[in-house]
Amino acid sequence: MGSTYGKIFKISTFGESHGVGIGVVIEGCPSGVDFDTDFIQSELTRRKPGQSRITTQRREADEFEVLSGVFEGKTTGTPIALIIRNEDQRSKDYSHIAAQFRPSHADYTYQVKYGVRDYRGGGRSSARETAARVAAGALAKLLLANFGVNIQAYVSQVGVMKLDKSYTELDLSETENNAVRCPDPAMAEKMFTYIDDVRKKGDSIGGVVNCVIKGAPAGWGEPVFDKLHAELGKAMLSINAVKGFEYGSGFDGVAMLGSEHNDAFFIDDKGEVHTRSNHSGGIQGGISNGEDIYFRVAFKPVATIMQDQESVDDKGDIAIVQGKGRHDPCVVPRAVPIVEAMAAVVLADFYLRNKASKL
Amino acid sequence: MGSTYGKIFKISTFGESHGVGIGVVIEGCPSGVDFDTDFIQSELTRRKPGQSRITTQRREADEFEVLSGVFEGKTTGTPIALIIRNEDQRSKDYSHIAAQFRPSHADYTYQVKYGVRDYRGGGRSSARETAARVAAGALAKLLLANFGVNIQAYVSQVGVMKLDKSYTELDLSETENNAVRCPDPAMAEKMFTYIDDVRKKGDSIGGVVNCVIKGAPAGWGEPVFDKLHAELGKAMLSINAVKGFEYGSGFDGVAMLGSEHNDAFFIDDKGEVHTRSNHSGGIQGGISNGEDIYFRVAFKPVATIMQDQESVDDKGDIAIVQGKGRHDPCVVPRAVPIVEAMAAVVLADFYLRNKASKL
Amino acid sequence: MGSTYGKIFKISTFGESHGVGIGVVIEGCPSGVDFDTDFIQSELTRRKPGQSRITTQRREADEFEVLSGVFEGKTTGTPIALIIRNEDQRSKDYSHIAAQFRPSHADYTYQVKYGVRDYRGGGRSSARETAARVAAGALAKLLLANFGVNIQAYVSQVGVMKLDKSYTELDLSETENNAVRCPDPAMAEKMFTYIDDVRKKGDSIGGVVNCVIKGAPAGWGEPVFDKLHAELGKAMLSINAVKGFEYGSGFDGVAMLGSEHNDAFFIDDKGEVHTRSNHSGGIQGGISNGEDIYFRVAFKPVATIMQDQESVDDKGDIAIVQGKGRHDPCVVPRAVPIVEAMAAVVLADFYLRNKASKL
Amino acid sequence: MGSTYGKIFKISTFGESHGVGIGVVIEGCPSGVDFDTDFIQSELTRRKPGQSRITTQRREADEFEVLSGVFEGKTTGTPIALIIRNEDQRSKDYSHIAAQFRPSHADYTYQVKYGVRDYRGGGRSSARETAARVAAGALAKLLLANFGVNIQAYVSQVGVMKLDKSYTELDLSETENNAVRCPDPAMAEKMFTYIDDVRKKGDSIGGVVNCVIKGAPAGWGEPVFDKLHAELGKAMLSINAVKGFEYGSGFDGVAMLGSEHNDAFFIDDKGEVHTRSNHSGGIQGGISNGEDIYFRVAFKPVATIMQDQESVDDKGDIAIVQGKGRHDPCVVPRAVPIVEAMAAVVLADFYLRNKASKL
Repeated sequence: MGSTYGKIFKISTFGESHGVGIGVVIEGCPSGVDFDTDFIQSELTRRKPGQSRITTQRREADEFEVLSGVFEGKTTGTPIALIIRNEDQRSKDYSHIAAQFRPSHADYTYQVKYGVRDYRGGGRSSARETAARVAAGALAKLLLANFGVNIQAYVSQVGVMKLDKSYTELDLSETENNAVRCPDPAMAEKMFTYIDDVRKKGDSIGGVVNCVIKGAPAGWGEPVFDKLHAELGKAMLSINAVKGFEYGSGFDGVAMLGSEHNDAFFIDDKGEVHTRSNHSGGIQGGISNGEDIYFRVAFKPVATIMQDQESVDDKGDIAIVQGKGRHDPCVVPRAVPIVEAMAAVVLADFYLRNKASKL
Repeated sequence: MGSTYGKIFKISTFGESHGVGIGVVIEGCPSGVDFDTDFIQSELTRRKPGQSRITTQRREADEFEVLSGVFEGKTTGTPIALIIRNEDQRSKDYSHIAAQFRPSHADYTYQVKYGVRDYRGGGRSSARETAARVAAGALAKLLLANFGVNIQAYVSQVGVMKLDKSYTELDLSETENNAVRCPDPAMAEKMFTYIDDVRKKGDSIGGVVNCVIKGAPAGWGEPVFDKLHAELGKAMLSINAVKGFEYGSGFDGVAMLGSEHNDAFFIDDKGEVHTRSNHSGGIQGGISNGEDIYFRVAFKPVATIMQDQESVDDKGDIAIVQGKGRHDPCVVPRAVPIVEAMAAVVLADFYLRNKASKL
Repeated sequence: MGSTYGKIFKISTFGESHGVGIGVVIEGCPSGVDFDTDFIQSELTRRKPGQSRITTQRREADEFEVLSGVFEGKTTGTPIALIIRNEDQRSKDYSHIAAQFRPSHADYTYQVKYGVRDYRGGGRSSARETAARVAAGALAKLLLANFGVNIQAYVSQVGVMKLDKSYTELDLSETENNAVRCPDPAMAEKMFTYIDDVRKKGDSIGGVVNCVIKGAPAGWGEPVFDKLHAELGKAMLSINAVKGFEYGSGFDGVAMLGSEHNDAFFIDDKGEVHTRSNHSGGIQGGISNGEDIYFRVAFKPVATIMQDQESVDDKGDIAIVQGKGRHDPCVVPRAVPIVEAMAAVVLADFYLRNKASKL
Repeated sequence: MGSTYGKIFKISTFGESHGVGIGVVIEGCPSGVDFDTDFIQSELTRRKPGQSRITTQRREADEFEVLSGVFEGKTTGTPIALIIRNEDQRSKDYSHIAAQFRPSHADYTYQVKYGVRDYRGGGRSSARETAARVAAGALAKLLLANFGVNIQAYVSQVGVMKLDKSYTELDLSETENNAVRCPDPAMAEKMFTYIDDVRKKGDSIGGVVNCVIKGAPAGWGEPVFDKLHAELGKAMLSINAVKGFEYGSGFDGVAMLGSEHNDAFFIDDKGEVHTRSNHSGGIQGGISNGEDIYFRVAFKPVATIMQDQESVDDKGDIAIVQGKGRHDPCVVPRAVPIVEAMAAVVLADFYLRNKASKL
């Protein structure tokens, strides 16, 4: 249980880091969506390992195969299955941890929960699973493009280096122009050097990804449990290494007065209802109000480090986990397309759910 | 859609602020749980309005009636329906907003989504709905008590006033001894005065609720989307006025190195596996590891203020929304039992889901 | 688990035969449906006990109270909760079976499954629960009326007395004119006498309810598991005492050749596609094709009889269950509105689900 | 929507008749189940085409590949994805029906519902999808084998040729010894000749599959909608060409008196509770009572016949559909393993659901 997300636009991922491959079944995608293979591949390429020296050196082409649900370039309304085969597996790299629990990984908890686990590269708990999410999210983006919805994430913080600007002050089109995926080129360079230094020390560092959604119409989201931001929050928190989520004014908003925080409504030149400020982050009562939706996602430092660490083994004995294998010193650059993908899945689902709101 | 939470321990709430009442159906509660009416009532009393001058003066006894699912003091495994009738409704207070959209409320989004809405006191979007959650959460607590799981929330911040101590340094048994529900008596007093000042100005202020769960065994939570913290996050973000969620090291964790952040495993005196630090917040790979689970929830300032505000009406004309009615100047004191309730529901569900993990 | 039906138009029933009452929460009903209280009450009246001497003499007004989700006569898109309080409970009638398992009732299986049960009148397993279904089904009918969908069930068999006519040869408007709900008045009279004879002997007898749905457009139903007839089948089989379901040609169709059974398509005068025959029962590949949908539901003889029966008790000792209490000698007359209600719920759900089929 | 079955043991099938292949993701299978590849393959072989001259001559090895969820021969608790690639596709055989609607197929309804369809061999609506069900069902059987549950289906009727014996009078181990899968060898031979005659005429014929489940403990099934027989009914009705379902006494039971039909309880030699008769079909109140579970499933004659048929095309013009391609003259021999597979999936799900019944 737990490998499916969504109520109508429903994605089910499968696969392990060092098994045959990973994949996803997308059920509930409406018929008639252009299935743009190149676009989906380009999204996978944004996430794939080995993009620069500050990402893991695992080599994966991350090419996908479509097994079903697409006919003559269009979705048919039936389940769409995609698989991405694993290539550069090096399972032997993991024999040393077959019986050990790596600190702050899922080794111990999986062992307790299931009594058995595929220890190779973390198995099911590996972030490799997110490739399947990116493929599904790419399809969700293609669906949403029909309504002019645009989703753009970027790195706003790495360790202590924080971009102190609102998204409205940034040129988000710069994001993909550097390896860090920070839209401020000067800051991006500093972040790159910072991450590279951490990498050289065999250590890792955390970061923050911001995300902005433009063009979502008012009315998406469902009261009372499935609020738009509650689902966005769950979707983000379900990504490996995520420790926090906030939207709109977020944690900073707690220090504001209601009279400052409230977003006054007005009628604009086109006769449309808008708000003068947007502390609500485009969501009121759990439902989109037509303004920009924006949120922030905190990622912890990756648990895999190139250092020896104190631990225990599955016999209950003390063990020293050695720093081996390949890893990302900082996940946020590669997390950007994952954040966008999950946001797209959430929105696609709410678009479809909202169809049933009125008679 | 969206009024149901949980996969096995499933709660469905219904009701509006100024309708007949609110209620909840709890499906999937196992048979044999002691249905302690007094305890459930005491939890509702912790949430009910009119507790002190810093909470809304609406008068509700919030007494509940059991309609089904309980026989001779025990749950029977069949759906448990509870209702709480509304008493002090004063629907007339709301006639002035029948056609207006209150800033940062759900009036506008409900209108767009449904084309019709019960405008009285926010209708379904009112935080009054959370009384039903507290009742369901109380039952979940009774279920969890069988396994020694204890859930304790408290106020850690009001506006700029922040309690800079870890829960491990606090005496949480002090929490219920003051109207703010802050376990530090000195800070509680300051917060009370602060909130009261805000109230006198007809304004509102935000705050943060922390929550600690002790005694949860390892193995609860489901990979990969239904991670324990992802469900906790969704559950918290589904509470009215919540803007952010973080667990373990949270947003602060992004500035740490992996070598600092990783929680080393060791064997304690009793031969049990534990971690030396707990930046993971008791959850690894989305599954509880047996350590304390802890998280923080950010609440915005309440949207209802006693001031005139610029807005529009449902004809698309400019309108001035007047400050009328009764409201909480700060929600966090009353949010404490709601946070606990939703945490209990999440855990009860995962307890039951985990039963199906192994053959 | 198991008290909820539907994916979007979702009904959750609760309540026991001799508890406070029974009820239902309807989630996912779109906003804007006329909530016709009189109609809903009239449907409940069709199902209620004490209609004639061939139905149980329990006295229940079966009046319902609306707790939520309706505002100014319209559904608002939020959950609609309805309750029907129990009046004529006579729980004492059941003290003799507190420890005994009545043959072919659910006493034994509930006891094994839950370890505890509300034995009064069968508790949750009582057909009294179907009153909640009828109320929900009435709302579904009101929803479907917007699209011209009409659902009509009738009794076609009681014991060995079988109406050997197709629905196309019957005047279904006669159905409600007799206590048996058989649209052939002569047959109805014979059936009435037959049931009354069985009643006098303290025995019970089974029967068959047929149902015809007119006006459902093509496109409702979902491949591959949630076929329209599969959901109709499940919905019918979930009604107390049902033993079988068949649609279109049903069990008789197995003896036909494909060349006889296939329904040829043609274009009618209005240019619409229709089929010359309708062995498909209006459903092809699990999706409605625009023709009449029709099916048959088999009901066993009621398990409660006024005779002594061999059984065991909860200590594992031999017991004689005495024939006491009030019961229906034949359920099919009162089952007619229940069959219609469940069909309406299934169709309402598929209407909403189908909205998400195409971009 | 609609391609997923089950609440905990959840199977999601994908794939089309003439696409890349078909497959299934099984989520919620507990860890620790022996993944017996040979057994799963043997089940697929029982279903595969080309077994004798009375089944379709399409040539498919129906070998499956495991993509995930299995490690060192055991299930790990994570999703298990299986694919079966299509080999003998002959898509050209179907170009003549690209624009035509074959009578009593799903061509027309899919076209109306989705506006687009993969017409090759019926695409998603093809019974080829059931291979994925058989694979999933084989795993469910492996799970159930741990509890001694045994599922055995057989052909009891082909056209008018009906085996008038109860399963208790038959030697079910004979079932797999003939091409028809009828446990009575003499009847099997007659049925074979009958089907072969129908085949030679280019026609098709229906039939009935019976199924018996032994060893299921009391307590499986959930009140009130998810009754064990209601789910079995839905599962069976979701199989291609099924028109009816009955369990226990079924449609014949309606003519019985309650005093005849009721199954008296008694205590056997071992001190176990049993029933003297079993008209209940092993299910009371929707929950298994420990007796044999048995049911019957009606299959219509296959819609594909080798004859010209009147129809229309997607332009709304009259068309003559020609009899081409390969088909089964009677589906019931190959339906036997499919019926068993779906029964196994239903039971595996209820086994897991039942774990949450009691505290």
